[in-house]
Amino acid sequence: MRLLAFGESFVAGAGDPDHLGWVGRALRGRRAVTLYNLGIRGATTTKLAGLWRGEAQARLSDEEPCRIVFSFGVNDTWEEAGAARVAPAQSLLNARAMLSEAGALCPVLLVGPPPVPDAGRQARIAALNENLRQLCASLQVPFIDVFQPLAADGPWIAEAAAWDGAHPGAEGYQRMAELVAAHPAWRSLTLAD
Amino acid sequence: MRLLAFGESFVAGAGDPDHLGWVGRALRGRRAVTLYNLGIRGATTTKLAGLWRGEAQARLSDEEPCRIVFSFGVNDTWEEAGAARVAPAQSLLNARAMLSEAGALCPVLLVGPPPVPDAGRQARIAALNENLRQLCASLQVPFIDVFQPLAADGPWIAEAAAWDGAHPGAEGYQRMAELVAAHPAWRSLTLAD
Repeated sequence: MRLLAFGESFVAGAGDPDHLGWVGRALRGRRAVTLYNLGIRGATTTKLAGLWRGEAQARLSDEEPCRIVFSFGVNDTWEEAGAARVAPAQSLLNARAMLSEAGALCPVLLVGPPPVPDAGRQARIAALNENLRQLCASLQVPFIDVFQPLAADGPWIAEAAAWDGAHPGAEGYQRMAELVAAHPAWRSLTLAD
Repeated sequence: MRLLAFGESFVAGAGDPDHLGWVGRALRGRRAVTLYNLGIRGATTTKLAGLWRGEAQARLSDEEPCRIVFSFGVNDTWEEAGAARVAPAQSLLNARAMLSEAGALCPVLLVGPPPVPDAGRQARIAALNENLRQLCASLQVPFIDVFQPLAADGPWIAEAAAWDGAHPGAEGYQRMAELVAAHPAWRSLTLAD
């Protein structure tokens, strides 16, 4: 199986000294899965919507089952001059376009955005997370919510605050990987033929 | 620092149960380096030459130093109907184009192709490896030769033969990572500002 992961810095595993990120950690030991980690630091949903398809087409194969996982939105919530970098309504349009188009190619999963140690952004990410959950329900795309568990306990927020204000380290990524790997939607996506 | 790695399945780490490949293993513990692993299974140098620039432009940043490492060529040597998938002269033209164009953007390194457990392809990869070494010398691009060490000893060939005939497992990738990480050209590329 080939798993294509699209998203922002958290997908890329920025700040993980082991260079696995949550995606690599969630796949540990799964030798038959080839991971294509295509996360991009700072990428908004608008940027991702413009480039995911070309990068997917270069990697999708008829030889093996392929799956796509997305995780995006935190960068959209960054405020510049008093407005979010991408307005919430546009984030949802971008998400809808990516999930619908990718879903026509292969099974797709959305992992919701993780929290950051900043109260203002936290609230905007929480709202986006809820909107994405509802969008996925309407599109019948599986959704894994990691926001509340990562915000509520454990090392994610502490490591991010101690590093660069956004990205956790090995423990935070491991915690997120465990949340994802334990979810039926992840097992269904990555264990099916 | 952001390190962009372009190449074929060996860059992607296909067959590595830890989903690190040699690139991730060579960077272990280097938390300040964001790795973009853009390896693609089955990609020839012709395919890579056509897409590396777009994927690089989506990830290069003015905010941090960027570096590019390439490792390609094994797929070119696959024979179809008695001829290599990409002729040796074309492989070198493709390599020259990628290394020259990337070198105009940021510091670049080429890691030579690893061996496979097939005598016929082994000979063609050895010839390509030598041609790439000479090309890099003429372009003044640093080159790390892993072919002979991986062919001569250790787990690379044994693991690849036992798995799918091409891709090693954790020990083989770890051995390649150690060869790369110990090379002055890698240290120069990844430790400089």
